[in-house]
Amino acid sequence: MVTVSEVALEVKRSQRALARASGAARRKALLAMADAIAGASSAILTANHEDMEAASGLDPAQLDRLRLNPSRIEQMAEGVRGVAAQADVVGAIVDGWVLGNGIRVKRVRVPLGVIGVIYENRPNVTADASALALYSGNGIVLRGSSSAINSNRAIVAAIREGITRAGLPAGVVGLIEDTSREAAREFMQLEGVIDCLIPRGGKALLASVRESATVPTIIDGDGNCHIYIDRSADMEKALPIVANAKMQRPGVCNAVETVLVHADIANEAVPLLAGVLAGVEIRGDKQVLEIIPERATLASEADWATEFLSLVLAVRIVDSLDQAIEHIATYGTGHSEAIITEDIGSAGRFVKEVDAAAVLVNASTRFVDGGQLGMGAEIGISTQKLHARGPLGAEQLTSVKFVIEGEGQVRS
Amino acid sequence: MVTVSEVALEVKRSQRALARASGAARRKALLAMADAIAGASSAILTANHEDMEAASGLDPAQLDRLRLNPSRIEQMAEGVRGVAAQADVVGAIVDGWVLGNGIRVKRVRVPLGVIGVIYENRPNVTADASALALYSGNGIVLRGSSSAINSNRAIVAAIREGITRAGLPAGVVGLIEDTSREAAREFMQLEGVIDCLIPRGGKALLASVRESATVPTIIDGDGNCHIYIDRSADMEKALPIVANAKMQRPGVCNAVETVLVHADIANEAVPLLAGVLAGVEIRGDKQVLEIIPERATLASEADWATEFLSLVLAVRIVDSLDQAIEHIATYGTGHSEAIITEDIGSAGRFVKEVDAAAVLVNASTRFVDGGQLGMGAEIGISTQKLHARGPLGAEQLTSVKFVIEGEGQVRS
Repeated sequence: MVTVSEVALEVKRSQRALARASGAARRKALLAMADAIAGASSAILTANHEDMEAASGLDPAQLDRLRLNPSRIEQMAEGVRGVAAQADVVGAIVDGWVLGNGIRVKRVRVPLGVIGVIYENRPNVTADASALALYSGNGIVLRGSSSAINSNRAIVAAIREGITRAGLPAGVVGLIEDTSREAAREFMQLEGVIDCLIPRGGKALLASVRESATVPTIIDGDGNCHIYIDRSADMEKALPIVANAKMQRPGVCNAVETVLVHADIANEAVPLLAGVLAGVEIRGDKQVLEIIPERATLASEADWATEFLSLVLAVRIVDSLDQAIEHIATYGTGHSEAIITEDIGSAGRFVKEVDAAAVLVNASTRFVDGGQLGMGAEIGISTQKLHARGPLGAEQLTSVKFVIEGEGQVRS
Repeated sequence: MVTVSEVALEVKRSQRALARASGAARRKALLAMADAIAGASSAILTANHEDMEAASGLDPAQLDRLRLNPSRIEQMAEGVRGVAAQADVVGAIVDGWVLGNGIRVKRVRVPLGVIGVIYENRPNVTADASALALYSGNGIVLRGSSSAINSNRAIVAAIREGITRAGLPAGVVGLIEDTSREAAREFMQLEGVIDCLIPRGGKALLASVRESATVPTIIDGDGNCHIYIDRSADMEKALPIVANAKMQRPGVCNAVETVLVHADIANEAVPLLAGVLAGVEIRGDKQVLEIIPERATLASEADWATEFLSLVLAVRIVDSLDQAIEHIATYGTGHSEAIITEDIGSAGRFVKEVDAAAVLVNASTRFVDGGQLGMGAEIGISTQKLHARGPLGAEQLTSVKFVIEGEGQVRS
């Protein structure tokens, strides 16, 4: 088996040619990748079948994430085409100015270099991440889970075939086939080779990255998201938004986990909420229990801090906007936080004072997603503040370079 | 003594008021800080005198960095005023767009939260870093060296007095007085409290941050900077630029360490270079030795990788632009790299293909500095690619927040 550092060094070597390639050449490579993935559908399905057969110890949700079918493979190819449809980010001028001495300064977007992604069961990450990395001029080193190794091998083979067909070096996409913990640790410590490591997975993976990684990382963290229903809220907006944010896809990070309701409207709002949340288990504070005793159980302190990722919703009555902001500051994970209000002052304060990757006014938290926000696709959603916050698209996989041009100027 | 986490938590608590303060209020606080530093000049000098008396094991360069005098204190105050003279970065809209469903999306600059700075002898970092952090709405936790503890205490006392006078909470600036290694490690691991840690110092400090830090970091790394003199170079530009980049202040990171000369012009260029580099020790390759045998000694392999930080210059003859780019890729540290050329094609390729925080055309590497580039001041120069690359000013101490506004939209 090729070692971790051999895989990564091959990607690093190959990336220099990619960095020189034009936007048109990178777009062509993505379209060829998409065709190659679609064309390899039966080989990928066979490999995925092997993974599904061998899977042990995975729960139904994990098995569902691992499973591929013809429609999911077509979606994978479409996702790659979606990235290629975006404007090119490489070489874009961020800003520029002229110094008093005549020197021109500009900041230009450049690829980060080599992106590392360490992830769990979803094979579609293999295609999405490769497309975003390559389109932004980066090489990519992938390290999926052992449960998806056959699927990932087949997808990477297709991707590489597409890249080769388009005339770029296939070596820009590397797959670490050693799925041991030691290999993961070695991956996280490839200083000078991996320019940015993005872990996508559960708490254990994130903790291990925080502890072991010595290369720069972007953390795709938890989403304990809130919706605050202000005193002035229009319930005709609030009810569909809460239902959408909780029930459309409860297992994802931008689903809502706690709804905060202003005390002045709680007697009307809480029963209406219960009405639209059919099949959702409600865990409320004491006041909520008084209003809908037959529908709610008492929330524990731990519930406020829990990302349920299922049809469970915590509901709390708050006395004021301040108390709502305070609750979010205490329990939120800095992912997506929404206010439903008709009051411009409340909206303004919420937007300014809530510290999160995304703050929303009168819209569902489910919109916090690279595809939904028009960014083509995403390699994850950053909950950290450094480098990139929120959905990570192609632009977020770039750095800037100062370009400084003069005619012989020296510093005095 | 107050513990590390007590210092940091007090800063975190105080920062929320700062985040709500207007740009005018933050500017006023900086001007009051500057006045307070200037007003406390004699107290700061007394404290610095204690540090100088107690100093042991410091070399002359380190002692020089530690030493304050009335003029240096005035420069410190002026530096703070320079930051206040910049445009406010907090709340600036980075970009924005409208989705097909009518939702408005914008990305807005927000403070990172709490900045940590860990540094060595220079007491002026205390003032510069505090000014940049506060102006961008951040709290700051400072951890200087034990050799500068009295100076730092006096400067922080003045800064806090200024902030209080301006009506903002003095708690936004915290000083860790425990200068033990254990305290440093605890500081580097204050997850959820320190949003960004910036180490400023030598290799040992950077290695310890890479190894121990679990909070996000921005590395202010080494500067093994190059100037490539192209075949088409105008020597009337090249000579003053090399002299300036090597001799004006050899001990800093943006000074040049290696000059690469195109073979076609080496016989004329190398003696001219030797002529303007009076007092500079030249370590050349074999060809350089043949041209100026009386002036140069033979460079070792290690010399190409060395940041001399003194009046020593490595000189190598290269056959082509490609070889120059390859040399820089091999030995450079991604700081500042310059080309001297009259050929637009060579300039274009150098700018595109050299991977560094700053690439320069026909200008001295010494311009790669926040103050020189019109950014007010700098808290360091990042040689990493994530988040910020190059000089770190107030803007680089911000993050972005997605603000998403609708009228009840839900995801379908």
